[in-house]
Amino acid sequence: MKGLDRAACRAWAERVRATYERWLRRLVEIPSVSSDPARSADVARVARAAGELVRSVGGRARVVATGGHPMLVGELAGPPGAPRLTLYNHLDVQPADRAAEGWSSEPFRLVRRRGRYFGRGTTDDKGPALAALFGAVAARDAGVPVTVKLLWEGEEEIGSPHLARTLRRLGRSVETDAVVISDSAWLTRTVPTVTAGLRGWQGFLFRLETGDADAHSGIVGGAVRNPLGELMDLACALHDPRSGRVKVPGFYDDVRPLTAREREEFRRSGFTVRAFRRDNRVRRLRSADPLEVMERTWARPTFEVHGLVGGHQGPGLKAVVPARAELKASCRLAPGQDPARVAALVAGFARRHNRDVDVEVAPGGSPATRWDPTDPLAAAVRVAVEFAFGRAPAFVRDGGTIGAVGSMREILGCPVGFLDLSLPDHGYHGPDENFEWPQAEGGIAAFARLIREWGAARNAGPRARLAPSRASGAGPAGPDRRRAREAPRRSP
Amino acid sequence: MKGLDRAACRAWAERVRATYERWLRRLVEIPSVSSDPARSADVARVARAAGELVRSVGGRARVVATGGHPMLVGELAGPPGAPRLTLYNHLDVQPADRAAEGWSSEPFRLVRRRGRYFGRGTTDDKGPALAALFGAVAARDAGVPVTVKLLWEGEEEIGSPHLARTLRRLGRSVETDAVVISDSAWLTRTVPTVTAGLRGWQGFLFRLETGDADAHSGIVGGAVRNPLGELMDLACALHDPRSGRVKVPGFYDDVRPLTAREREEFRRSGFTVRAFRRDNRVRRLRSADPLEVMERTWARPTFEVHGLVGGHQGPGLKAVVPARAELKASCRLAPGQDPARVAALVAGFARRHNRDVDVEVAPGGSPATRWDPTDPLAAAVRVAVEFAFGRAPAFVRDGGTIGAVGSMREILGCPVGFLDLSLPDHGYHGPDENFEWPQAEGGIAAFARLIREWGAARNAGPRARLAPSRASGAGPAGPDRRRAREAPRRSP
Repeated sequence: MKGLDRAACRAWAERVRATYERWLRRLVEIPSVSSDPARSADVARVARAAGELVRSVGGRARVVATGGHPMLVGELAGPPGAPRLTLYNHLDVQPADRAAEGWSSEPFRLVRRRGRYFGRGTTDDKGPALAALFGAVAARDAGVPVTVKLLWEGEEEIGSPHLARTLRRLGRSVETDAVVISDSAWLTRTVPTVTAGLRGWQGFLFRLETGDADAHSGIVGGAVRNPLGELMDLACALHDPRSGRVKVPGFYDDVRPLTAREREEFRRSGFTVRAFRRDNRVRRLRSADPLEVMERTWARPTFEVHGLVGGHQGPGLKAVVPARAELKASCRLAPGQDPARVAALVAGFARRHNRDVDVEVAPGGSPATRWDPTDPLAAAVRVAVEFAFGRAPAFVRDGGTIGAVGSMREILGCPVGFLDLSLPDHGYHGPDENFEWPQAEGGIAAFARLIREWGAARNAGPRARLAPSRASGAGPAGPDRRRAREAPRRSP
Repeated sequence: MKGLDRAACRAWAERVRATYERWLRRLVEIPSVSSDPARSADVARVARAAGELVRSVGGRARVVATGGHPMLVGELAGPPGAPRLTLYNHLDVQPADRAAEGWSSEPFRLVRRRGRYFGRGTTDDKGPALAALFGAVAARDAGVPVTVKLLWEGEEEIGSPHLARTLRRLGRSVETDAVVISDSAWLTRTVPTVTAGLRGWQGFLFRLETGDADAHSGIVGGAVRNPLGELMDLACALHDPRSGRVKVPGFYDDVRPLTAREREEFRRSGFTVRAFRRDNRVRRLRSADPLEVMERTWARPTFEVHGLVGGHQGPGLKAVVPARAELKASCRLAPGQDPARVAALVAGFARRHNRDVDVEVAPGGSPATRWDPTDPLAAAVRVAVEFAFGRAPAFVRDGGTIGAVGSMREILGCPVGFLDLSLPDHGYHGPDENFEWPQAEGGIAAFARLIREWGAARNAGPRARLAPSRASGAGPAGPDRRRAREAPRRSP
């Protein structure tokens, strides 16, 4: 195990496999559904169990109260002054209902079938969490001089509502030099992918009231302004619903275009339009070209309407002119766009277009994050994934917005990257969720190698190379945070 | 009473006042709420009670099954061969909840306060029904040679779903030469108004499906077509929601413009924008000019959106791209417009604009009706109202669509007019609904005079003058129906 070569890693992993499986069973069989108040005790219980595991492998661990479900904070200490790498995973899971969703076995029993582990949480995210931890143990056993910290959350599936304030409160004890998240899936079973960027988000609520009560379209129709119609008119002024193009002047100004290298990584990611349609149960797309679909979902900003409240929502027709209506909409943001500036542009345009419309800029606006593929953490992930799975990963993106990523970048003031282990047929959020030993074994190898690779670069290279990316916001200024501010700006 | 002069009518009415009030109490205290299945027995009971009343004044009456709530069909027979005038009213009422609506007294107790009769149904439509009946009794007592028929419906408040088939089934027994409806309110307390036209209606449901399940806007947003957005785009292509102008080519082609005389009648109707706002609880109008508001609501066609179903309707934001959406909309139609042609224009335009949209033309399309103010029935109403209330009525319109009017015009094949008795502060469909003796007394005088006036014109003038208006559709061809077809077309 000393050399951390592939064969040694594999042999080490086979030796701990029974332990890995015992712990996976123990964690999966605790139904830690964070969205279900009746399961609160289970979310706390899974954190305590995980703490026991961390201590059993020689680490320190404590269950931290957050105001919501608790979080497990752990550490496998390296030598004094060693660089600190934080592994982020989560221990809470999606709900599961065997009959309603059509599971083949009990969701909260770990069942081995056809060489896979079935059960809610196997792939999202308990299996990958254990792989990351065992990878860290392997690295420590091989004498890699890195302190590995653990942030295992209990509220990821409900949007991490208490993560930011908890990290701020914990202060020095969660200080770190980089974070790696393992909580996403590859696009195919054969090409490893790494999530190298997320879109940002800014929500809007547009409201218009033209009366005190819904009126009868026979009596008032033609003379009274219809708030549903006027909000439709506003939506069509803000964007073209057919093409998706946003019409607000200046909206696209700050969007950073994809580089040729990013496009090339997208092309070899294994993405197909057919799988995209099937996995998301969508049929009618704005483009049939795979690269355009990837660009549209991963790298371009949108204005999207989510609902128009008001009038008659029941079956058939009821001839009302409603007194009020509310349009729910939001923008996904591309790297470069500032949520506050987009909010001001959209709200200003809307108010000028229809001065009677009340515009509420929703809280929770979040910028896009983009992980520079030349970042040392990214370079280490690339090496580690190729080492473990025999194929260089494609750095792709995800069109969604993960609040935890933004919070960690901002508060911890360091790079936040991904090392994904789940496969597309692992049933993320669906029935028959599963994980499998080859991905766990590869994950152990990948994390062990990542820790060594990143630690070596960190110890050897200029400290500035590991500064937070430009996308990170203003957090509390700890020592690393100050280093970050002195660092040279990376080119986009 | 012989001469039917105003003083004689007044004296006659005062003599029957106690009877009128006793019957008004009896009918109002039967809670004949047609929309409430628990009140079915009461709707049947009110029809039986009304039959008893008709027989008590020397008429014939029978309660007719309709498949829904029964209808009272009655007759005060004139001499053989006398012209037949039908009085249409309804005995069913809106629901009433004392606490929820804020009534000052029990809705289903007749309470006399400040010289008025309070109770659900007093003005809509039991009080006017009794006034019309007593007017007919007065005319008969004065020896006017007209057969007065009664159609007292039990389903007006729920859209008269069984009226057409019941009239068809009754055939010869409901044959008539004209119908007068008393079921509307004046615009002010001082200027009598007569409803001389109604708008037509044509409903539409537009549907678009782009996927099998709602998707996450982070994952698919930008690439997947958004059916909510595309239906908003369609709505904005069909009309301008700000001005209300319909953009479908040809939509306005057949609209008959208002005549100078109709405009003049509108101007002296007592209509004010202030009262329109207050009565309908609307605030923001497309015009502040009273004549324009009247034209927009009474005489111009519309395209109105009533609801857009799909996506997130709950509080706050949920970032979905819905799989499907449905736009509910309808057109009010002006005289001259054919619902079938409008349906074809709108549906064709929508399909060309977005070929994936499924367009459902709703059943129940109905043309506008316009009562020619030179029609002998209209002339008789004008004389009768001025006789009773001391002021010539303004012939206005109503922007709504009353299915019963269209059904009667079509099936009975004769003119259908209005003689309205309610006042704007009578609380139509609201709390503290009320009626008052001066309107009842005036109504008795007006109906007595109408019957005499119309009967005299009918007996003296050319039969063809009483033919159905052009707006009536194709009904079963009875004798009057055939006469109608031979009648010269009136100018619009």
